[in-house]
Amino acid sequence: MTRTIKLAVIPGDGIGPEVIEQANRVLDAVLEGSDVRLERTEFKLGAERFLETGETLPANEQAAIAGHDAILFGAVGGVPGDPRLKAANIERGLLLKLRFDFDHYANVRPCTLFPGVTSTLANPGAVDFLVVREGTEGPYAGNGGSMRSGTPHEVATEVSVNTAYGVERVVRYAFETAQARPRKRLTWVHKTNVLVHAGAIWQRVVETVAAEYPEIAVDYMHVDAATIFMVQDPARFDVVVTDNLFGDILTDLAGAIGGGIGLAASGNINPDRTFPSMFEPVHGSAPDIAGQQKADPTAAILSASIMLDHLGLTSEANRVRDAVRADLAVRGASPRQTAQIGDAVIAQLQASAAGA
Amino acid sequence: MTRTIKLAVIPGDGIGPEVIEQANRVLDAVLEGSDVRLERTEFKLGAERFLETGETLPANEQAAIAGHDAILFGAVGGVPGDPRLKAANIERGLLLKLRFDFDHYANVRPCTLFPGVTSTLANPGAVDFLVVREGTEGPYAGNGGSMRSGTPHEVATEVSVNTAYGVERVVRYAFETAQARPRKRLTWVHKTNVLVHAGAIWQRVVETVAAEYPEIAVDYMHVDAATIFMVQDPARFDVVVTDNLFGDILTDLAGAIGGGIGLAASGNINPDRTFPSMFEPVHGSAPDIAGQQKADPTAAILSASIMLDHLGLTSEANRVRDAVRADLAVRGASPRQTAQIGDAVIAQLQASAAGA
Ligand SMILES: CC(C)[C@H](C(=O)O)[C@@H](O)C(=O)O
Ligand SMILES: CC(C)[C@H](C(=O)O)[C@@H](O)C(=O)O
Repeated sequence: MTRTIKLAVIPGDGIGPEVIEQANRVLDAVLEGSDVRLERTEFKLGAERFLETGETLPANEQAAIAGHDAILFGAVGGVPGDPRLKAANIERGLLLKLRFDFDHYANVRPCTLFPGVTSTLANPGAVDFLVVREGTEGPYAGNGGSMRSGTPHEVATEVSVNTAYGVERVVRYAFETAQARPRKRLTWVHKTNVLVHAGAIWQRVVETVAAEYPEIAVDYMHVDAATIFMVQDPARFDVVVTDNLFGDILTDLAGAIGGGIGLAASGNINPDRTFPSMFEPVHGSAPDIAGQQKADPTAAILSASIMLDHLGLTSEANRVRDAVRADLAVRGASPRQTAQIGDAVIAQLQASAAGA
Repeated sequence: MTRTIKLAVIPGDGIGPEVIEQANRVLDAVLEGSDVRLERTEFKLGAERFLETGETLPANEQAAIAGHDAILFGAVGGVPGDPRLKAANIERGLLLKLRFDFDHYANVRPCTLFPGVTSTLANPGAVDFLVVREGTEGPYAGNGGSMRSGTPHEVATEVSVNTAYGVERVVRYAFETAQARPRKRLTWVHKTNVLVHAGAIWQRVVETVAAEYPEIAVDYMHVDAATIFMVQDPARFDVVVTDNLFGDILTDLAGAIGGGIGLAASGNINPDRTFPSMFEPVHGSAPDIAGQQKADPTAAILSASIMLDHLGLTSEANRVRDAVRADLAVRGASPRQTAQIGDAVIAQLQASAAGA
């Protein structure tokens, strides 16, 4: 019996289409000969679309995307400082809107330093952790405003909104994730000594949920201290759970120490499956190198592997990860083109299939 | 004619007293034979004081501190998780209260990788930048609250408050600082694509002030990207200006890549001199190693050198920095006791004085 998976593809801007093309090729290769069929719909959204039509995310397209089983997302954003995009805010109007409206409350971002990959750290050790970043509230809530804008008396606010409902579900997800990993460690990160109200709700929730997971070793770090540990001893982390903004910051840092942002994958997960989850490389649209086959599609390919996991295709997900791992181990320092990296990962997939 | 400087000393908790003792010895050594006299008043404040008397910062002591020319601050905070300190919040009630009430709006934190010091990065390059962190508003404003606390319906908020007045004065300070440095670069860091209101006020202010400093090359980075650059190419930074929370995070990271938090100094500066400025190592009280002469007093000593700068004692400030630099160059890897490092810096001071 054939299983059909409806996949919404949003390649986006800049290097987005190039890296997504390779992720799609790898998906086709790993599913070849299986009973799983991908039925893709492409949505042209992002800065380019906005410049052409003035639209960011029309309601009917959002509804159409919602009808899919998963979303593969490249990257969005135009050339920095483009005055025509000033009023647009593609990030809030498209990327964050999808995360919020589709209730992607668990933004998972693994950080593994694969063999053969050079870290920016002198002594990284065995880096293999996963950040679970809250995805639907906190400082990203979009609350806030400005009065007397543009005058010397302007006051601008940003309100971080944190709910027991929102914090508990992501903390629970993080504990479940830690429970399924061999090291069974969970580090929660906040700034409880300064952000006392948000910090208190996080602390209460973590302590309450922790009581249900006696096997998990829990520790706490202030976000500033967490950046120190991340560059001095990243091997100490297993699962990290934190709020939306701290997670944004820590996962870019994690990307850098895990071999660069070209390898950093993510899943914007709705664990309740009330809306499709969305899988995207952590990197941006990098318009400066777009269209030149210079981008590394590995982050997009690894994001596709997280998607396979989410869809229950665990052995396919592992095969993709193993192929990437095998490619990275022999990759060396000489740069390859975007499509060449896709070719190499597919060759590794085929070699392992032939060997199996 | 003798100049008397009234110095308020707050050694604080944990390793605070040990490192401040060495900073004071170095101050005495560098001022020996000069016409500058330090008149010190010690204030016993911090977690230990709170546990003894229930007081955090009595109004009369705050008023007494305000009557000094400068404050030398060690570190405050008890053993993490001590239930007796739960209600206290020494950080907000003492450290942040001093920063806010004394209008320390320019929190300056240099990051220099001195010769002989090992960075956690494989290829750090020539690291020599300075972060100017806003010190009196933003997410640290202390606005926010919680309703239905401790119930499943709790909502907790934190309000970042940003004013044109507050942003402009620190941005102006950062431009002045950049103007006085040879590389004349200023990087401002925020998260304008998500925190659109606070981001807009920062952007407007930076653009307005930049027009007055045509020699300064200005660039912008999102805070998440800034962490990547900081571990991949820290040498690109000269002066960085950012808000209170982003500055907190970035300066711990900077400390780690600049040879460790044991070397990271800071000045909480009130450039208008309406209240005394305060000089403190970036590190915390580290109760786990307190009283064992294990702490590195270098951050405290370098903080004292920033104080000398602020007091107009530039050549003394430079002599202290040169002595630290000379000591670090020969320090080697074998650990020394807190007082031994003080001894060594003083010996370098004396050697340079004899050689001069
Ligand atoms: C583009 C931006 C809105 C986004 C974020 O801040 O979440 C990005 O930095 C990320 O980490 O996915
Ligand atoms: C102790 C804490 C309140 C403080 C801060 O967050 O500012 C510290 O981390 C620092 O950087 O000086």
